[in-house]
Amino acid sequence: MGKFNLNADMAEGYGPWQMGNDDGMLDVIGSANIACGFHAGDYNIMGNVMLKALAKGVDIGSHPGFYDLHGFGRRQYHLLDAEVERLIAYQLGASLGMAALTGTTITHIKPHGAISNMACADAGLAAAIMRGIKAVAPSLILLSPAKSELIKEARKAGFVVAEELFADRAYMPDGQLAPRSRPDAMIHDPDASLAHVMRMFAEGEVLCVDGSVIPIEGQSVCVHGDGPTALKTAQHIRQGLEAAGFEMCGLDEICRGS
Amino acid sequence: MGKFNLNADMAEGYGPWQMGNDDGMLDVIGSANIACGFHAGDYNIMGNVMLKALAKGVDIGSHPGFYDLHGFGRRQYHLLDAEVERLIAYQLGASLGMAALTGTTITHIKPHGAISNMACADAGLAAAIMRGIKAVAPSLILLSPAKSELIKEARKAGFVVAEELFADRAYMPDGQLAPRSRPDAMIHDPDASLAHVMRMFAEGEVLCVDGSVIPIEGQSVCVHGDGPTALKTAQHIRQGLEAAGFEMCGLDEICRGS
Amino acid sequence: MGKFNLNADMAEGYGPWQMGNDDGMLDVIGSANIACGFHAGDYNIMGNVMLKALAKGVDIGSHPGFYDLHGFGRRQYHLLDAEVERLIAYQLGASLGMAALTGTTITHIKPHGAISNMACADAGLAAAIMRGIKAVAPSLILLSPAKSELIKEARKAGFVVAEELFADRAYMPDGQLAPRSRPDAMIHDPDASLAHVMRMFAEGEVLCVDGSVIPIEGQSVCVHGDGPTALKTAQHIRQGLEAAGFEMCGLDEICRGS
Amino acid sequence: MGKFNLNADMAEGYGPWQMGNDDGMLDVIGSANIACGFHAGDYNIMGNVMLKALAKGVDIGSHPGFYDLHGFGRRQYHLLDAEVERLIAYQLGASLGMAALTGTTITHIKPHGAISNMACADAGLAAAIMRGIKAVAPSLILLSPAKSELIKEARKAGFVVAEELFADRAYMPDGQLAPRSRPDAMIHDPDASLAHVMRMFAEGEVLCVDGSVIPIEGQSVCVHGDGPTALKTAQHIRQGLEAAGFEMCGLDEICRGS
Repeated sequence: MGKFNLNADMAEGYGPWQMGNDDGMLDVIGSANIACGFHAGDYNIMGNVMLKALAKGVDIGSHPGFYDLHGFGRRQYHLLDAEVERLIAYQLGASLGMAALTGTTITHIKPHGAISNMACADAGLAAAIMRGIKAVAPSLILLSPAKSELIKEARKAGFVVAEELFADRAYMPDGQLAPRSRPDAMIHDPDASLAHVMRMFAEGEVLCVDGSVIPIEGQSVCVHGDGPTALKTAQHIRQGLEAAGFEMCGLDEICRGS
Repeated sequence: MGKFNLNADMAEGYGPWQMGNDDGMLDVIGSANIACGFHAGDYNIMGNVMLKALAKGVDIGSHPGFYDLHGFGRRQYHLLDAEVERLIAYQLGASLGMAALTGTTITHIKPHGAISNMACADAGLAAAIMRGIKAVAPSLILLSPAKSELIKEARKAGFVVAEELFADRAYMPDGQLAPRSRPDAMIHDPDASLAHVMRMFAEGEVLCVDGSVIPIEGQSVCVHGDGPTALKTAQHIRQGLEAAGFEMCGLDEICRGS
Repeated sequence: MGKFNLNADMAEGYGPWQMGNDDGMLDVIGSANIACGFHAGDYNIMGNVMLKALAKGVDIGSHPGFYDLHGFGRRQYHLLDAEVERLIAYQLGASLGMAALTGTTITHIKPHGAISNMACADAGLAAAIMRGIKAVAPSLILLSPAKSELIKEARKAGFVVAEELFADRAYMPDGQLAPRSRPDAMIHDPDASLAHVMRMFAEGEVLCVDGSVIPIEGQSVCVHGDGPTALKTAQHIRQGLEAAGFEMCGLDEICRGS
Repeated sequence: MGKFNLNADMAEGYGPWQMGNDDGMLDVIGSANIACGFHAGDYNIMGNVMLKALAKGVDIGSHPGFYDLHGFGRRQYHLLDAEVERLIAYQLGASLGMAALTGTTITHIKPHGAISNMACADAGLAAAIMRGIKAVAPSLILLSPAKSELIKEARKAGFVVAEELFADRAYMPDGQLAPRSRPDAMIHDPDASLAHVMRMFAEGEVLCVDGSVIPIEGQSVCVHGDGPTALKTAQHIRQGLEAAGFEMCGLDEICRGS
């Protein structure tokens, strides 16, 4: 019997502003990536979402990004390695503090936005991120895109990893996500998204934009809560996988068998 | 042989801006209160000051404040108790993350500015702060003004406390600091400051603004690094106390005898 | 034939975050109060909303608040008079700059949130706000709650004023808005809101929470775009007033007859 | 009799933090570039420095930068042209509002930091900046490095320009500033700085890093107020130029002969 995990970014409001539909998503996902206040989120929003996740049995992860509220962590910054380590250690520490207060634990960490995209292709940056994590919480699971430099550096540093698959993104023949600038980068149809995911979980392979088929393996699918149809798509994927006999699990169970 | 501790607020720059003379103060003090990024400080400044403190054998504490860079944490905000707990847990967690990265440990926590002033006189706020600390790091020493509600609530919550004395501040007959609006609130002369501190440590008493003398006890003196003469005054107090036979120690040694 | 104006706060998103339904509201209102970047809004959002308002023939006003993104300008700050003048002059200048860029003009100014609430009851604060406005753009119309100190100080300073009425708020016998802490402060039913507004415009009087009826006069009704039913309520009020023979106008036409 | 102008960046503190020595510099310079709150400065600091400049007869300019307090406007952002226009229009409008409040006028505008550096070499960015300025205040003088794309685009757009020379920076044979990464980029010796400036004003030429001499022309020298010797260097340059018979003037007088 196969297992799967769905993860989503959460707590990405700020002050009076909301982002996405956290309440709805918490009924669908198994793992919540909680923003840490640097690209989004604040101490109140983090606390509220952590309490709700705890009540619904959803695992909690830290979701650090660049220090850039106005750009939502989606703009590139070029930091020194020591700055990257500090950027990560600060936010991960804050996540751990909030988790302690709310009586829960952090199971994983998933870098956000531009720093994640950059590190997926930059082994040096990925290694700096992993040093920041290792100093603070070496037993966390790193959740990052399958086949990325982040996954490779995490393995080198002795971390348990969860490779992330994308239901709404097409793949390149080298296993990387097709860039959003391509017209065929996004998969909008819910049934196509489900089929895309199903093939990855059931067959361990993915159809690429050039028509080739490559092997791919992952433990968690990233779903989204903003946009008018996002929640329905997430529900569709979960129900489809469950109907096919897959079982939703936390990352600990999938990655560590515990 | 008496023991004493000097503490100072540190890492209170932000981005390109500096505050005070951290390098100079680290040669004088025994305990550094490191700002956490909410009223001042950022991940880089925190990391730099922690490394310097570690190199100079200065103990490190967390120094959380209101979320108010523009007002430097000196303006009053009226938060719900749950918000106060989160405000503290976030910043303390971030401090712990940064300490782990820099290979040091956090010995104490000292609230900053307006939230400290408010909590010194408000048992409910003080209790909320202590709940935030207790959830994250219950073995820290709370460093706060002598005879304050913060000290009382920390004791109730089972914390080891360090009562703080002020070399440059006159006292009221009830043991509270004279408000800065009084013309006699500040002690500017270095010799007067030293005598003020010496009497507190050697005799366990303080001369108040009305001429009365009251008992007071404390373990640490707060000194400052900004202003043209601040560093010299801090050096003068340390040298005076050492010349009188007192020994500078960390808060652990004074408060726990370890 | 009576005239009326509807106004709404706009451009109150920030970076990636949205607030309310600006596009929908621009089809209903006659005057848009554009946030200036201090409590909400940023240069891009301001520019986008100004262009849309221009295209739809909606008048534009400046909507300055306290410098407090995280608190959305709803928290009280106690500034010196000179600081208040600067707070207003800065934001109003920025609004004028953005209006010049987008090829439109600023017709009015409406203070936001806590600084508006405070100034409605504090003549000194209201006078400081008006000095800030007068230095920068003395020919603007001040839009503020009817019978407030802001209206009085604006008249003293020689400004044309537009007194604002609230469709969803009950009134006290002294003409002030019933505080939100009262259970009867809000009028939720769309028909009750319309009747409330109609009586104010048609009869020049309002039914108060204690059952008394007092005279009231105003030129503009404040409507809201956030919340699931807000836009429909705003449409209902506009259609109701138009069905009763009232004509929607800009503030210039109502207040100056031009 | 030759004329010259000295300009310096000012009001670059933020909240509790100071930058440089504004009071000292106002006794030396003829034109103050006032930060606008995006890379540094806030409404209070702007107002204070404008009042001091007015009292000392120093001309005031607007000094807009990227929206990046933490990076002090020194990091590169890649904005759309429409965003650049808005970035500039907002800040320039705010400067004009503050000048109106303090009873002074804005004579010039000088872009700051990374956006200036980028626009000096990028005609498209320079043109977008000039469109933002032209929409709001087309009669301002643009102050920017000599021979830059900013100067060229300003001339194309019909602006009066002031070409800026640097006392502490060596030049490349193409007239651009030597990049700071070169070991010979900075001129640290005060007498060498004075001789460097004197040759530019008196002979209309500059010695380049490769030993060549090229023609250069400018109206204003940029001096700095931070660092232990900066103020003395600025005084040295002013006194040296005045001793050689040059007269300090405002930009209006030099650039427009008025």
